Amino acid sequence: MGTVTVGVIGAGRIGRLHTDNLLRMADVRVKAVVDPLVDFTDWPRAGVVTGTEPELVLSDDEIDAVLICSPTPTHAPLTEAAAAAGKHVFCEKPIDLDPDRIRRTLEAVDRAGVELQVGFNRRFDPSFARVRRAVTDGEVGEVQIVKITSRDPEAPPVSYVESSGGIFLDMTIHDFDMVRFLTGTEVAEVFAMGAVLIDPAIGAAGDVDTAITSMVMADGALAVIENSRQAVYGYDQRVEVFGSAGSAEAGNETPNRVTVSAVGGVRTDTPLYFFLERYQASFVAEMEAFFDSIRNDRQPPVGGRDGLMSVLIGRAAARSMAEHRPVAVEAP
Amino acid sequence: MGTVTVGVIGAGRIGRLHTDNLLRMADVRVKAVVDPLVDFTDWPRAGVVTGTEPELVLSDDEIDAVLICSPTPTHAPLTEAAAAAGKHVFCEKPIDLDPDRIRRTLEAVDRAGVELQVGFNRRFDPSFARVRRAVTDGEVGEVQIVKITSRDPEAPPVSYVESSGGIFLDMTIHDFDMVRFLTGTEVAEVFAMGAVLIDPAIGAAGDVDTAITSMVMADGALAVIENSRQAVYGYDQRVEVFGSAGSAEAGNETPNRVTVSAVGGVRTDTPLYFFLERYQASFVAEMEAFFDSIRNDRQPPVGGRDGLMSVLIGRAAARSMAEHRPVAVEAP
Amino acid sequence: MGTVTVGVIGAGRIGRLHTDNLLRMADVRVKAVVDPLVDFTDWPRAGVVTGTEPELVLSDDEIDAVLICSPTPTHAPLTEAAAAAGKHVFCEKPIDLDPDRIRRTLEAVDRAGVELQVGFNRRFDPSFARVRRAVTDGEVGEVQIVKITSRDPEAPPVSYVESSGGIFLDMTIHDFDMVRFLTGTEVAEVFAMGAVLIDPAIGAAGDVDTAITSMVMADGALAVIENSRQAVYGYDQRVEVFGSAGSAEAGNETPNRVTVSAVGGVRTDTPLYFFLERYQASFVAEMEAFFDSIRNDRQPPVGGRDGLMSVLIGRAAARSMAEHRPVAVEAP
Amino acid sequence: MGTVTVGVIGAGRIGRLHTDNLLRMADVRVKAVVDPLVDFTDWPRAGVVTGTEPELVLSDDEIDAVLICSPTPTHAPLTEAAAAAGKHVFCEKPIDLDPDRIRRTLEAVDRAGVELQVGFNRRFDPSFARVRRAVTDGEVGEVQIVKITSRDPEAPPVSYVESSGGIFLDMTIHDFDMVRFLTGTEVAEVFAMGAVLIDPAIGAAGDVDTAITSMVMADGALAVIENSRQAVYGYDQRVEVFGSAGSAEAGNETPNRVTVSAVGGVRTDTPLYFFLERYQASFVAEMEAFFDSIRNDRQPPVGGRDGLMSVLIGRAAARSMAEHRPVAVEAP
Repeated sequence: MGTVTVGVIGAGRIGRLHTDNLLRMADVRVKAVVDPLVDFTDWPRAGVVTGTEPELVLSDDEIDAVLICSPTPTHAPLTEAAAAAGKHVFCEKPIDLDPDRIRRTLEAVDRAGVELQVGFNRRFDPSFARVRRAVTDGEVGEVQIVKITSRDPEAPPVSYVESSGGIFLDMTIHDFDMVRFLTGTEVAEVFAMGAVLIDPAIGAAGDVDTAITSMVMADGALAVIENSRQAVYGYDQRVEVFGSAGSAEAGNETPNRVTVSAVGGVRTDTPLYFFLERYQASFVAEMEAFFDSIRNDRQPPVGGRDGLMSVLIGRAAARSMAEHRPVAVEAP
Repeated sequence: MGTVTVGVIGAGRIGRLHTDNLLRMADVRVKAVVDPLVDFTDWPRAGVVTGTEPELVLSDDEIDAVLICSPTPTHAPLTEAAAAAGKHVFCEKPIDLDPDRIRRTLEAVDRAGVELQVGFNRRFDPSFARVRRAVTDGEVGEVQIVKITSRDPEAPPVSYVESSGGIFLDMTIHDFDMVRFLTGTEVAEVFAMGAVLIDPAIGAAGDVDTAITSMVMADGALAVIENSRQAVYGYDQRVEVFGSAGSAEAGNETPNRVTVSAVGGVRTDTPLYFFLERYQASFVAEMEAFFDSIRNDRQPPVGGRDGLMSVLIGRAAARSMAEHRPVAVEAP
Repeated sequence: MGTVTVGVIGAGRIGRLHTDNLLRMADVRVKAVVDPLVDFTDWPRAGVVTGTEPELVLSDDEIDAVLICSPTPTHAPLTEAAAAAGKHVFCEKPIDLDPDRIRRTLEAVDRAGVELQVGFNRRFDPSFARVRRAVTDGEVGEVQIVKITSRDPEAPPVSYVESSGGIFLDMTIHDFDMVRFLTGTEVAEVFAMGAVLIDPAIGAAGDVDTAITSMVMADGALAVIENSRQAVYGYDQRVEVFGSAGSAEAGNETPNRVTVSAVGGVRTDTPLYFFLERYQASFVAEMEAFFDSIRNDRQPPVGGRDGLMSVLIGRAAARSMAEHRPVAVEAP
Repeated sequence: MGTVTVGVIGAGRIGRLHTDNLLRMADVRVKAVVDPLVDFTDWPRAGVVTGTEPELVLSDDEIDAVLICSPTPTHAPLTEAAAAAGKHVFCEKPIDLDPDRIRRTLEAVDRAGVELQVGFNRRFDPSFARVRRAVTDGEVGEVQIVKITSRDPEAPPVSYVESSGGIFLDMTIHDFDMVRFLTGTEVAEVFAMGAVLIDPAIGAAGDVDTAITSMVMADGALAVIENSRQAVYGYDQRVEVFGSAGSAEAGNETPNRVTVSAVGGVRTDTPLYFFLERYQASFVAEMEAFFDSIRNDRQPPVGGRDGLMSVLIGRAAARSMAEHRPVAVEAP
């Protein structure tokens, strides 16, 4: 397979981001983009067919692969439909909030014999990938502790929070996947503490905006994730893996490497604002990995099981906070 | 009071450290040092009386203040005896492992009307004190999350572990005090996870060598402490306070500010080895604070209540791990 | 003008780099690429006409702008020919090694009324651009000292050195432009010291591989550039501007933000290898600036005078080293 | 020799600093301090004899070593007198501004068979000493370039400047010694550029406040020192040694290791204010080295020749600037 032909379902922020990246990629052709709500007057480039219905993509025999970037409730049915149509699928996270629904989707994908990649783009961040190499190459020895700092620059609107599934399934889910990625190990048990310290409306909506989640891994190592919905100085995304031979830490990305010394302090600019800026390279790299997998008939680096596990951990965390006790993670 | 005259009880590592610091201090006179086991041939300087019995110090009317640097089980009785003799007391931590015993000691100190300072030297570390100022000066706004990384460079011998009271009362106790110091708030509830990942003998002795302790503060903020008994690259002592206006982080102290760029990497030397090196300045500063308090008839900056609270939190953490559930901290 | 149509003359490393960047750019169409020596079988994409002769580009009425990426001796005549054909020109540095030849070329460009941009891409590096903003925004106050560290990761082959015009016109020329860019001021006088410390063959070819060039600026500020042809740890590209209100320094770019602490040291990966990696973003940004200028009928941010001045400074430096005395920079 | 008995001549800022350090040192006894202008009411401690005349120190047979901390014009005669009295001498820099006068003093010291150490304390700074080790241990390979940044936090009063001997003999002299220390090589030739950019009164006094001095070393390596009399953000003292195997850089010392992230930037506190703060450890270490040399009958680590060479380089720099040409350094 030389050029892979792609259809994109969903042209919101993330769908447009992926499409623009694909348009710059050699050996990938974006044939169609559909979204029921988007005005396609100015975007994308000439040559791409646009429409409102997924059917336009799913029924096109030229299309080899589908990107599912539509709202979460459509992820599972569209993944199944695309698989049934014989198309490889890249699906944004989460596949669904209900583990059983995810399981049924994964079975459908298996039956169809197509590849499925889930959108945990952070695994492709150069710094986090380097920390993972510090683990696989033995630089840190046996992993004993994983620490993740994950803070958004500003809290989402309450309307978003209400349908998000809660902080653990909306925000921490990326960090749960990161713990699994960095260690290569499953999470066995979770204890989550949450607090409403930023926006009382988030609390009124039944969610928290600040959380500390500690975990025991299947091999006995410990992990802890710390989340805040609002770091006023920007997107704070750091990880550390500590082990018997040392420690590897990834710091924040900044827009430049400049330090200004003046009366009152020595300062650098604040971290890149949010995920579009910070994870720019990782969004490109995850697409390259997806198309590499398709071309070489190889399992994608982030598969359906990864999509399922992160939801199972997120649900255990939510229950732990609700029941005020440590909770074991359900088996896949 | 111009020159303060001091007696030191206990001349092990920490007793000698304090004595050497006092000998360099203006307006402080070390009159006597006692220890039943130490050979005083080469140390300290001429002019200091040495002996084996605490009585030598306690019965000397010239002595204004006593440093108690003897083994933990003697801290409470010696503090009481010194107070009864009308002497101000600096006592190494912990005052005792039993809260009721501590309470009785604090009452005795109160009755005697002397000052008592407890040896939480880390509060005087220039970096941690700077983070505290970031809190009191409003640089970080309302505190939402406190994170402490506290890793020793090498595990103690099992013989030490056996009589240490366990990791939470021996090692994390400093970090519990740090959480209280940085926030100015009490710890309300604790959840502790522990693991034996470094030395199975520590596990056999009934203790853990790796731990993550999460906390809810009385004002709703969250905190987490992460401990390891062995960081092969040296003493890893970092704190971060995150709040509504920003974040303040203290990194490790290194022996110099040199960076070497060569094939294979850009590197600096590892952090200062252990507490004697890292906290050198803080040991001097805590003594200066103690003598300042005495001279100005002021309450010392780290008092008996601080000594009690850290033990209460440590005990809650130990129980949390044992009972596998979050535990509320007992009232003082 | 919506889409700008472009022809590229010269398809070596830098010509291909620019072409690939343009192919990813909206509203730019690469119509033709010519090079007498290149095999165009695998590159560039379908849709681009290829050939051997500049005439193919120069005589095409559809082509609005020409990129001149051929060997240095062809820069001046091709720039003149393109200008005469009414095309805007982006020319790689240097325009020529002979100032009079450059002057004639600039006159020809002026007469033709087209825009000319010279390839000093480093001005578009995010870190160096940030330092420039620290100057224009007043963060550093009145500029007093500029310092540039500029070290290549490995020395070029002697065959290259022989036809390069010498280190000051080949390598330091970028740094001379940087001094002018950062300060917004001209260089008045130069004193250069050179040494052969890396490769005796470079000395045998009449050049040096290590140099320190100090400068007095027209406004009295001082500047110094330090060059080495071989930094074994990678491309070392740093600048500092010091002034009455403070200092702004740009450090190296690294492939990630990871720090590994282990026995023996705390290390990060070495800087990005060479200019293709380090200045990747700046190559894109300089093209965007060029096409912006064309579209908005505006003078490009790096013009012909900048191309001339850097050569004049380089020649003064070469003469300073040869004559072992400070040399005033010739007027443009 | 167990305890060394010391007399101090000159009790200004630096004389008091050394005396206070010696009072804390084991096996050193400060017997007498003299200064014609100082009121000794509150300082130093009881037990030290004070007076106005050097004779009090020089004629005391118990005194083994003399610290000369009086004004520069008295350094040479007092060093000679102390040597003639059979006392080891620690002399602040410079020994004299006239090389011939220095030579006569060194001959007198040699004849007397006593030890002489000159006060280039920066060699004992932990960071600069570490860079030197990177050279001697081969971490940086063959030295090719040395770079020194040396900026004071504020300009001295003009009255001081007038009698200082000029920036090269007053301020850069420390940096010249540093170049020699770091490389272990002599400076062969100097070219200096100076400017008056901070205080016109300094210019009116015939001096400059900003300078860049480039050097060729005896082995062909290059070096450059950059000086400013006023860095508003504090004392800026950095060095870098670059060689065939890599580079070692020493950054500034700061009062703590804290980073504060907030809206507008990520900042640390500014460097330690001035030499008393920055070089505190080095002042202690140079004294320890001096007394070690005396006790072990060993040549001190910074000797008379070092005192002479730095003056010879400073004079070459001053002449270079005055005559606007590179100047060879006079032979010792």
